[in-house]
Amino acid sequence: MKIVGIIAEYNPFHKGHEFHLEKAKKITGADAAIIIMSGDYVQRGIPSIMPKHLRTQMALACGADVVLELPVCYATGSAEYFATGAVSLLEALGCVDYLCFGSECGEIKILQQIADVLCKEPELYKVLLQKHLKNGNAFPAARKLAFIEYLGKNKSLSCIPEQISAILDSPNNILAIEYLKALSCLNSSIEPVTITREGAGYHDQTLGGLFSSASALRQGLQDCELTKNANHTPAINHILQELPQNCHKIFKENYHKCFPVFADDFSLLLKAKLLTETKDILTRYLDITPEIANRIITFRNDFLTFSQFCDLIKTKNVTYSRISRCLIHILLGISKCDVPDQAANSRCGYARLLGFRQESSWVLTSIKKNTGIPVISKLSQPAGIDIHMLEQNIFASDLYESVVTDKYHTPYKNEYQKQIIRLTL
Amino acid sequence: MKIVGIIAEYNPFHKGHEFHLEKAKKITGADAAIIIMSGDYVQRGIPSIMPKHLRTQMALACGADVVLELPVCYATGSAEYFATGAVSLLEALGCVDYLCFGSECGEIKILQQIADVLCKEPELYKVLLQKHLKNGNAFPAARKLAFIEYLGKNKSLSCIPEQISAILDSPNNILAIEYLKALSCLNSSIEPVTITREGAGYHDQTLGGLFSSASALRQGLQDCELTKNANHTPAINHILQELPQNCHKIFKENYHKCFPVFADDFSLLLKAKLLTETKDILTRYLDITPEIANRIITFRNDFLTFSQFCDLIKTKNVTYSRISRCLIHILLGISKCDVPDQAANSRCGYARLLGFRQESSWVLTSIKKNTGIPVISKLSQPAGIDIHMLEQNIFASDLYESVVTDKYHTPYKNEYQKQIIRLTL
Repeated sequence: MKIVGIIAEYNPFHKGHEFHLEKAKKITGADAAIIIMSGDYVQRGIPSIMPKHLRTQMALACGADVVLELPVCYATGSAEYFATGAVSLLEALGCVDYLCFGSECGEIKILQQIADVLCKEPELYKVLLQKHLKNGNAFPAARKLAFIEYLGKNKSLSCIPEQISAILDSPNNILAIEYLKALSCLNSSIEPVTITREGAGYHDQTLGGLFSSASALRQGLQDCELTKNANHTPAINHILQELPQNCHKIFKENYHKCFPVFADDFSLLLKAKLLTETKDILTRYLDITPEIANRIITFRNDFLTFSQFCDLIKTKNVTYSRISRCLIHILLGISKCDVPDQAANSRCGYARLLGFRQESSWVLTSIKKNTGIPVISKLSQPAGIDIHMLEQNIFASDLYESVVTDKYHTPYKNEYQKQIIRLTL
Repeated sequence: MKIVGIIAEYNPFHKGHEFHLEKAKKITGADAAIIIMSGDYVQRGIPSIMPKHLRTQMALACGADVVLELPVCYATGSAEYFATGAVSLLEALGCVDYLCFGSECGEIKILQQIADVLCKEPELYKVLLQKHLKNGNAFPAARKLAFIEYLGKNKSLSCIPEQISAILDSPNNILAIEYLKALSCLNSSIEPVTITREGAGYHDQTLGGLFSSASALRQGLQDCELTKNANHTPAINHILQELPQNCHKIFKENYHKCFPVFADDFSLLLKAKLLTETKDILTRYLDITPEIANRIITFRNDFLTFSQFCDLIKTKNVTYSRISRCLIHILLGISKCDVPDQAANSRCGYARLLGFRQESSWVLTSIKKNTGIPVISKLSQPAGIDIHMLEQNIFASDLYESVVTDKYHTPYKNEYQKQIIRLTL
């Protein structure tokens, strides 16, 4: 029996994800798919639009067999750190045969060649990278320039500069390269497989077309909130059309009970938290440079909402997402010293089970037989676990739940009270 | 020139307060009134319904000459601690001739006799108090029983047991006795004067009658919120009728811009704050016993709003207000170790000016000439100040302002940016 691993946010789960799940199983011939899914916060530094238990339910209803949670420090980390955490978790399960991911490029060989250079960092490439960084380029730009120059001087690679430039401009390619790098670094036996991304672009905000992007769906949900008092059934139906049929019931039953959740629902918490911070304390949080800390302190009196504040703090060289990640790290108390050990070990200390299909429980058996890390199915009895990483995750989810229950006036359930989703067909 | 001191919350300022101000000046013959006013949080452990600067404006418009802020640790303290802080601040000004307060009893001689016993605590009284506490009575009940028994055995006092019982059952009498105790303890030369309380009772919730109580006005404002979407002009006009004419314009200009503010506007902040607390940490906050800490930890998952939580935590022996004070101390970070030094010194370390009438600026001159403590008129240049007490106050007000701006989507102004109210007639 073969297993394919998928790393995802499912924010929210849509038809494109369903397509990817089906195709991943088909092209690898895998009998089951294990999903490493972000929890209640995602990589662009925002809370997920729906709680993780709901997104798990949707994924299981549409073809996922087992859903494991990517710890929040990885889930809200830079692309590299996100990939390192997720791939190391897949690897640690000991029973995953393939890692299947989308990319705009669609050719694993080219992506792998790029990843090899970035992973091994040949001396010439390093020198070129330093040069372009010194010239004042932000890291992604410097990397691209260095890579193209390196390529001109190293004829052993099969791709041409124009290709590289296009590849490194696409967000899914960049993530794909990070996955490949992580697999290389871990000497993993997991075989990478890529699927050409179809449908809407990553940042595409319009609904409709072959597949609407998750961004477009989130924007659609936000637009519905703005017209809250009007009858917004048609608008919601428009969004439902973009979700797999199996998600409709789950969506309708939980709409305005536990979602949608936006970064701006955390505005007051952020404001209150920033009241007690100093520049020194701020720089202890993950991703925050002294310059960003300075800007946060300077402008902390000048915002009403979380997203306004990101817009205010971002600069030419520091993106909105980076700032948003910084602010989430402040709110969740994720500090730099939480990171180095884990990065050095390059591994995720435990596997937290969010849900599984009953018919695929053999996957769980296989994980338990082969893994070197504890599998947490019940929070009340974790043993031999990186407690700090887990506690940080529990706090992050309890804070999310606090916002949800405050917004929708529903009963509060803490992380210990939540059950694993078990889908019986 | 004579000056009368008044200790008040003005939450909100109403016709009864205006009457008290006029009468205080009249019966003492004072030329000016200095108000020691609670800031953004009040003694029953809730945020004030309006920001302190607005309440200052109203008080100045209705006969107050100078308004000073009672630091938040005193303002949210027990009746005894509240009185100690406020009276010591008045005393420290060095130029106050009278302290005028309302009481249900209205006879200073009787109140003074009770205060003397409670202040000096004769051996016999102490023994009786211990006995009644041991019998399981809460402190206020034990004190009353002990006092009545003491009275029966000590014929030198002029009041009779029935009087005592009635006196000690009335909240304004209890506060009056605390003021008298504080004056005695400080050997103050300030002469106490009491005015019989007229109009609605302290806890009276109905509007109308001679004077509506502040409770009734707050309840009225809350009721208006519940019917937010309907046209609530008539209800608001009903409330306006209970405010002095001079307050109407201030009220109308600021309604739904910076008030009303309720404890439940702090619900999410409380929930988030409680996520990270342990029983040990909780008992470090002012007023929190290990039993209260236990109850907070046990029930912290079971509430949606601040007021619901108070209802849930209160017991037969621990009142709603006491719990509310505990929760405010948690939110504002007011701990037990903030208190002893100040209590031992029995003095307020600085006088923070919130506002004054231009025509009464001679009062400020008199304070500056006679006081032994720094008078803060500009936050940016405080010198020789109990920095911790002041910083705590700044944090508390900034948190209040965060809630206000989040609720009403108005620009945020931190404590340093706020101006002293200067009323020019």
